[in-house]
Amino acid sequence: MTERPTSHFEREIYEQPEVLANLLEGGPAQAAVQRVAQALRERPPALIATLARGSSDNAVTFFTYLAGQTLGLPVASLPPSLLSVYRSNLRLQEVLGIGVSQSGESSDVVEGLRALKAAGATTVAVTNRASSALERAAHHTLLQGAGTERAVAASKTVTSQMLLLALLVAHWGEDAALLNALKAVPEQMQRLLGAPAGLEHLALRLTHARSAYVLGRGLSYGPALETALKLKETAYVQAQAYSSAEFQHGPIAAVNPTDPVLMLALDDGTLESNLEAERKLLEVGADLSALSSDPGLCDRASAAVRLPSGLHPVTQSFLLVLAGQLLALYLTRAKGLDPDAPRHLNKVTKTM
Amino acid sequence: MTERPTSHFEREIYEQPEVLANLLEGGPAQAAVQRVAQALRERPPALIATLARGSSDNAVTFFTYLAGQTLGLPVASLPPSLLSVYRSNLRLQEVLGIGVSQSGESSDVVEGLRALKAAGATTVAVTNRASSALERAAHHTLLQGAGTERAVAASKTVTSQMLLLALLVAHWGEDAALLNALKAVPEQMQRLLGAPAGLEHLALRLTHARSAYVLGRGLSYGPALETALKLKETAYVQAQAYSSAEFQHGPIAAVNPTDPVLMLALDDGTLESNLEAERKLLEVGADLSALSSDPGLCDRASAAVRLPSGLHPVTQSFLLVLAGQLLALYLTRAKGLDPDAPRHLNKVTKTM
Repeated sequence: MTERPTSHFEREIYEQPEVLANLLEGGPAQAAVQRVAQALRERPPALIATLARGSSDNAVTFFTYLAGQTLGLPVASLPPSLLSVYRSNLRLQEVLGIGVSQSGESSDVVEGLRALKAAGATTVAVTNRASSALERAAHHTLLQGAGTERAVAASKTVTSQMLLLALLVAHWGEDAALLNALKAVPEQMQRLLGAPAGLEHLALRLTHARSAYVLGRGLSYGPALETALKLKETAYVQAQAYSSAEFQHGPIAAVNPTDPVLMLALDDGTLESNLEAERKLLEVGADLSALSSDPGLCDRASAAVRLPSGLHPVTQSFLLVLAGQLLALYLTRAKGLDPDAPRHLNKVTKTM
Repeated sequence: MTERPTSHFEREIYEQPEVLANLLEGGPAQAAVQRVAQALRERPPALIATLARGSSDNAVTFFTYLAGQTLGLPVASLPPSLLSVYRSNLRLQEVLGIGVSQSGESSDVVEGLRALKAAGATTVAVTNRASSALERAAHHTLLQGAGTERAVAASKTVTSQMLLLALLVAHWGEDAALLNALKAVPEQMQRLLGAPAGLEHLALRLTHARSAYVLGRGLSYGPALETALKLKETAYVQAQAYSSAEFQHGPIAAVNPTDPVLMLALDDGTLESNLEAERKLLEVGADLSALSSDPGLCDRASAAVRLPSGLHPVTQSFLLVLAGQLLALYLTRAKGLDPDAPRHLNKVTKTM
């Protein structure tokens, strides 16, 4: 492959192990997480309500499964318009409201979190910008510390949101296994960044794909959503993400033979459901590729990147997000696009 | 247009005014709704948690906005895998769990509702099948009374789910305006069924579209999701639904000039946000069509079906779902497909 000038998107993808290692290493970020976790242990909410858009909402989807599994708490992803447009008066005693926005300026998220606070909820902001409007709307703030992100498509700001949200769950639920799984992330990411050949191969095969499906389930559903969004934003592929179960309840009818489907399959209880979807897709004649540690799935797929075995599903989830970013990056190269300047988008999108 | 043999899908679409009028006319369905509403008023939950797949989940999305606006209650759409695969122990005192499945046999929804009940939640089943597994998993059941649905793609079972859920909100919140808006639905549907020419025109223009975007916001977001699903299931168009706000946070980058975008715009507080998305889409050069009562939007669109003015947004939402069904039906005709026999699908999908 010829050398090309490095893009912001590429540089920011490669910065992730360091950004995440810094968040994990103690210091003010860890202290803030522990403080919030302590406060929540003392006065536990009955429900978590979240507000986010775009990539931040994909980080929240990942968090939804963790909070359910580890804390036993249901998470309601509030449609921002319920608060910003319809101005509904929600009854929110015993609710923890979490607003996630890297810029801290997404108007509907800010407005929504302010409304949650006014309605009596405890509120937490997860943002990359100190002193942002989102921080002012919150009782507590968890700062991502990812440094400025210049590419319009988010990379290090998504994984740092995922990490902060997962750390909050780990400390709140005093879950040592989860904490260890998170500590393993930077090194595992570094390894994948050092051996991206399989992803370049996957990307080349997608050069002329106008559309694609990205499937995941459980903890890999957030990474599937984020991978589809990266493919749309930077490489202009009309990529759609589905839970592999939901996919079988209708959307699979639109799949034509040779249509590309990328499966993000974790090595946990969701594997069986992904393999069931795989069987149906092979019958359909779809062009199935996979990011997975499962050897059988990788063998049967048209193309695959085999992830290391034996990792905690949470560690694997971060690798899936990273793999999706690299796939989008290599696809922009294959198509001769500039990953830093997606059409029709600005870095900060303000919708109400 | 030449006469063709009527399909189940078409017949069932046309049955809807009668099915919904029956539900509205008193009798056992209304009595059941009132009984459940009374019980919930006496012991109000702090949160509503829902479980559903496919079209049923689109009915739930519609309900989410109504419950927020009218009851002030947040709704958490629980990922079924959280309960069926990960077997998380959720803390669910003061939670109302609602499981929605026309067949009453969708394994992960049934399993999930059973788990909610075991965890202490009050549970309600919305189903078209009495004595189904879902009914047995619930404290209360609201029966859709839609009769057997033979087409694989749901029509009358979705609108009857929407109606039962909305009736529950209206009686629970003692909202007379909402109740009147629901009572107007059958007649308004009948009128649209009598004048489908604009929808035939919209469908013809989509004959060779491989993909399409369907946008809505707030109360029209559920109808947008359902319209996209119908287009996928019956006419094999890779249709993707987005909230018109969310769409601007990334997905719009993948839109090419002349790509078809269908906007479902209500005449309420969300109109402005839809018009903002419209402006960006016209800049992009998308082929924008609209289902709306807004004259300006309909004039500017490449093709439009103008809905009656002055209707409650909830009444409009039912018309949008119906218009989406007719659009899918006419598109199957234009493409020479059989709407009753979608590829790769069965009527009852059991996923875990």
